[in-house]
Amino acid sequence: MRPCTSAYEPSALVIGILGTGDFSRSLARRLVACGCRVVVGSRTPSRFVALFPEEAEVTHMEAANQADLVFVAVYPEHYSTLVHLKPALAGKALVDVSNGLQIKQEGPSNAQQLADLFPESSVVKGFNTTSAWTLQAGPRDGSRQVLLCSDDQMAKSSVMQLCRRMGFIPVDMGLLSSSLEIENLPLYLFPSWRTPIICTLALFIFFYLYNSVHEVLHPYITGGKNKLYKLPIEIVNVTFPSVALVMLALVYLPGVIAAFLQLWRGTKYTRFPDWLDHWLTRRKQFGLCSFLCAALHAVYSLCLPMRKSARFQLLNKAFEQVRRRSSDLYLSVGIMALGLLSLLAVTSLPSVANTVNWREFTFIQSTLGYCALFMGTLHTLIFGWDRAFLAAQYHFGLPPTFLLVLILPLTVLLSRLALFLPCVNHRLRQIRRGWEKSRHIRFTLSSEDCFNGLENVSNV
Amino acid sequence: MRPCTSAYEPSALVIGILGTGDFSRSLARRLVACGCRVVVGSRTPSRFVALFPEEAEVTHMEAANQADLVFVAVYPEHYSTLVHLKPALAGKALVDVSNGLQIKQEGPSNAQQLADLFPESSVVKGFNTTSAWTLQAGPRDGSRQVLLCSDDQMAKSSVMQLCRRMGFIPVDMGLLSSSLEIENLPLYLFPSWRTPIICTLALFIFFYLYNSVHEVLHPYITGGKNKLYKLPIEIVNVTFPSVALVMLALVYLPGVIAAFLQLWRGTKYTRFPDWLDHWLTRRKQFGLCSFLCAALHAVYSLCLPMRKSARFQLLNKAFEQVRRRSSDLYLSVGIMALGLLSLLAVTSLPSVANTVNWREFTFIQSTLGYCALFMGTLHTLIFGWDRAFLAAQYHFGLPPTFLLVLILPLTVLLSRLALFLPCVNHRLRQIRRGWEKSRHIRFTLSSEDCFNGLENVSNV
Amino acid sequence: MRPCTSAYEPSALVIGILGTGDFSRSLARRLVACGCRVVVGSRTPSRFVALFPEEAEVTHMEAANQADLVFVAVYPEHYSTLVHLKPALAGKALVDVSNGLQIKQEGPSNAQQLADLFPESSVVKGFNTTSAWTLQAGPRDGSRQVLLCSDDQMAKSSVMQLCRRMGFIPVDMGLLSSSLEIENLPLYLFPSWRTPIICTLALFIFFYLYNSVHEVLHPYITGGKNKLYKLPIEIVNVTFPSVALVMLALVYLPGVIAAFLQLWRGTKYTRFPDWLDHWLTRRKQFGLCSFLCAALHAVYSLCLPMRKSARFQLLNKAFEQVRRRSSDLYLSVGIMALGLLSLLAVTSLPSVANTVNWREFTFIQSTLGYCALFMGTLHTLIFGWDRAFLAAQYHFGLPPTFLLVLILPLTVLLSRLALFLPCVNHRLRQIRRGWEKSRHIRFTLSSEDCFNGLENVSNV
Repeated sequence: MRPCTSAYEPSALVIGILGTGDFSRSLARRLVACGCRVVVGSRTPSRFVALFPEEAEVTHMEAANQADLVFVAVYPEHYSTLVHLKPALAGKALVDVSNGLQIKQEGPSNAQQLADLFPESSVVKGFNTTSAWTLQAGPRDGSRQVLLCSDDQMAKSSVMQLCRRMGFIPVDMGLLSSSLEIENLPLYLFPSWRTPIICTLALFIFFYLYNSVHEVLHPYITGGKNKLYKLPIEIVNVTFPSVALVMLALVYLPGVIAAFLQLWRGTKYTRFPDWLDHWLTRRKQFGLCSFLCAALHAVYSLCLPMRKSARFQLLNKAFEQVRRRSSDLYLSVGIMALGLLSLLAVTSLPSVANTVNWREFTFIQSTLGYCALFMGTLHTLIFGWDRAFLAAQYHFGLPPTFLLVLILPLTVLLSRLALFLPCVNHRLRQIRRGWEKSRHIRFTLSSEDCFNGLENVSNV
Repeated sequence: MRPCTSAYEPSALVIGILGTGDFSRSLARRLVACGCRVVVGSRTPSRFVALFPEEAEVTHMEAANQADLVFVAVYPEHYSTLVHLKPALAGKALVDVSNGLQIKQEGPSNAQQLADLFPESSVVKGFNTTSAWTLQAGPRDGSRQVLLCSDDQMAKSSVMQLCRRMGFIPVDMGLLSSSLEIENLPLYLFPSWRTPIICTLALFIFFYLYNSVHEVLHPYITGGKNKLYKLPIEIVNVTFPSVALVMLALVYLPGVIAAFLQLWRGTKYTRFPDWLDHWLTRRKQFGLCSFLCAALHAVYSLCLPMRKSARFQLLNKAFEQVRRRSSDLYLSVGIMALGLLSLLAVTSLPSVANTVNWREFTFIQSTLGYCALFMGTLHTLIFGWDRAFLAAQYHFGLPPTFLLVLILPLTVLLSRLALFLPCVNHRLRQIRRGWEKSRHIRFTLSSEDCFNGLENVSNV
Repeated sequence: MRPCTSAYEPSALVIGILGTGDFSRSLARRLVACGCRVVVGSRTPSRFVALFPEEAEVTHMEAANQADLVFVAVYPEHYSTLVHLKPALAGKALVDVSNGLQIKQEGPSNAQQLADLFPESSVVKGFNTTSAWTLQAGPRDGSRQVLLCSDDQMAKSSVMQLCRRMGFIPVDMGLLSSSLEIENLPLYLFPSWRTPIICTLALFIFFYLYNSVHEVLHPYITGGKNKLYKLPIEIVNVTFPSVALVMLALVYLPGVIAAFLQLWRGTKYTRFPDWLDHWLTRRKQFGLCSFLCAALHAVYSLCLPMRKSARFQLLNKAFEQVRRRSSDLYLSVGIMALGLLSLLAVTSLPSVANTVNWREFTFIQSTLGYCALFMGTLHTLIFGWDRAFLAAQYHFGLPPTFLLVLILPLTVLLSRLALFLPCVNHRLRQIRRGWEKSRHIRFTLSSEDCFNGLENVSNV
């Protein structure tokens, strides 16, 4: 069992590297540091010797046959140029570290192409998510996980052991067929953020226009007043909180929908529709967008007194009798809501999330989250209460923004309350523990059920 | 040595799963991805086949006897229903993944109950802290540690190796007796935060009432003025900084006490009283609570000019001659203190804390921490200096809040200074390096002594 | 192959610990928890038995010979006192856990001294970066990496396996010669932050003095007005943004320089000058300093309306006709810039940085970073535009601060634009893919090239 040995006397292990790019240089440096013997195969060794650590032996391509395990650090489009090494590489483990240039939906992946070229060698896909920099600096910074896949378990195991020596954490991704996914990983650009960001922007534009009509267009048309100066700050500052509150509602809406869906179906063993699944997995991102808007709203509000244009109004306002003092309360509520949201944001940091257990995570993301939603709604209610009933606010018959904004949050809060009704709640618990309407027997289920149930329903 | 083999040819390894809940489904998915053969035992295979990956074979319970290693993903209360599998499971490793429903102080744990039911099998406790979600999504998100314990080292080792294949980090927690603790882990709800949060709330309530008496009750009784409008913001804004400063002092107080205790006892080899140990381990949480209050205080102060009720006063104040301009200084000092506190908060994030070495951590948490405490105290001093000596401030003979607030911080700062006196400091160093009053010989001690000494004394 | 066995039946494995300090106590506790047999060697066992877990056997030094693997938890200066154990320790793996007292530039390291004393034993360096606390609390908190090095691969492997059992992640640092570096690690005090912090302070002092001359000295000399009250807040608030913007420019300047250097040399295979390399690796720290200043600037600006001294001006200003309302725009731009900077700051948290892939990281740090730089510059431009051309602003012939500040950012932005010119951009890409002016053939290079290229040039 060579791999085992290789693990215990790496010095005995000879690692080959084909190609002399930055990646192979960093890899060589790292392997040498781990006490492995390194042989680098190059077309023009002389030119590159200087760039490699002196412990590494830089020589011609054919030298590969000394190695037990060979890294192919060559552009995929040049794999064909290696064919003459086929005999030298036969029976060896080839590690394909290459990346695609754009996301591919179907194969063959680079690794599979390599496998086709070298049928006698066993190809392992991996290290493509690891940057040359991480290799060089050592795994202390940068992600430490290395995703591996191969059809040859022995080859994969020996690469996994090498990973561990180098201080990386190998993750077995199964057969070579998953190499396509692994090659796509470094090419994604925040796939999970697309929907939330689009939502945020759409809401922002909608509310910005809606408010402009209210605050700028209406006074201009009716009174011919020029209120353009409101665009950069006032309007923005009314728009952000609207977006924040609606987004926060959108975080908890899918959970509520899922719950009602389960109640209606009377089972949890039928999949949710895709759009709902998709939505449920995006709640964290929705929440963070909401937090960002709320934070910007806070900064903007605090800037109000700094505005030149504000001073004048300030004076006028100041002289008129100060009534409704109690309404300062809405400030306090707002600040608290923001405080809670920041807590949620902090606990959604990977490193923090990893230190809390499931119950704590649920408590913060669900219980505190609903508190934040409630306070945010309250903040808006107190602020807008008396405005709501002044006909003067209904420009062009459009209701004031905050009425629009409140619809969704209130719906979520109320339907959430509905779920707390003993009968409903009890039935929901049963279902999450595997009970089914169809037949009234209980199956033996994993104790994680309720957890996963929670997962699908009540946490960000 | 099967486990070793199992590590290198997992495909050869057959994993059994009893139960068809979400956890077993996710587990099956993950194991299949790692190239293991999976056999799922169910009472009604037909109903569940659809829910499992097609590579996994869903069959009747008895199929378990094909497996080398069996996961028991069944509610503890149904363990008894598995007894008929005893012969099939004899000699196999059984992994108990179940969780308790509430925290148990003494056993038997679920795992121990399982072990009693299957004396011929060797039970391993683990994976109960891993959510079905983490299993499914792969260990990239969610905590990667899997706590394991068992009385059978071979069984434990093979499970540990399986863990590693799946990309998790197994942590050996010793014998099955520690399964109780492992089962309790997911049930805790921020145990380390209880004391600090209670302290914060208690202090908040106390200072809030104290300030209300000063600012609202007193003017009403004496002058009949209605100052209720001060409750939501002014009072809160005077209360938060008080709490923040006292809490920050409470972070450093235990360290100072510990130091004096060690000096007095003349040794470090006698344990601290429990309350002190408890306190020392909670300093980080105390610090974060203090930071939260300080941050809220900042936001509240920045909101002051926005208050409707403020405008009127503003004008009155504005016209009166502006004296004591220098006292704007207290703002600057306050901001700096907040800046330092944020640094401390950031470095107490797990991921950041892991990247700094011991000396850096101590520097930030101790040195910078004391700077923050000093600046906070200064902020309060400058702010309240001239108020302190106006008889008018002593309503009902009660001293103004900030005098009360200053007691603790000043005590801590002064006694810390005392510890810097050469003689005291030198003696303390000796003690921390193992010197003892009792007998004046030095023992051979680990070089970590002084570190751990520091740990007990001067860092959050 | 003992190490392998030791991994699977640790109970069979006897671990010896010499020394009875805090480190050895915590180590003993941890090893016992992992099911190892622990023998502690002490000069005066009786005194220390009480301090160790009862499973551990505390006995006289000679007991070491029972152990397969011995931890030497003794101060380096006392190694000589262990010489009499030489026969007992012969052929065993000795783990040196000691730390230096100050950073050593050349050896021999403690580990090497130990190796000289015990030539028949094989010394492994490690665990010195692990605090007693982390050992005791278990690796759940604190860094989990354990750096190991040794000249004996077998010994190193068995220690690595022990590490894994204890839940730590061993990192192989090669031969014992690297023990010096490992021993220095815990002694560094933010080496990577030195330059950035010095830069920040220097810039702060410079701009603070420059502004004081403008705002305080000039009015005093010319008009005899006493503006000292401006020192604590106004001046600081003008200084911070200046520092922030210049520092942000300094983040992107080296990248631009590197690009031009590569263009000029026509190759990437010649090393950058050291100062540039050094600078390139410090960009993250420069960025965070800049963010800190920007944040403080924001807080200060928000404090302005709270200043007593402000009220008076406020009134005077308020009554004068309010013109240039549009210029409120600069507030909005500034807030956006700050928002982007916060995003950059968050993504530079280790745990977040590890979850994004290379492309995402580059997008945030490079693309968004340049947006932040652009907005910051715009913020300053709008703010200072009309002031720039008032002769009144040129006190003592010195240009107003913001003109000085703008030089660097504009240079960076413009030269970055230059790099986007198709011809230049195309040539740069070629070079980063390994093309060379000297000879026009392309070598086979790793697909990571362009990544590493990016790394050197366009991301923080």
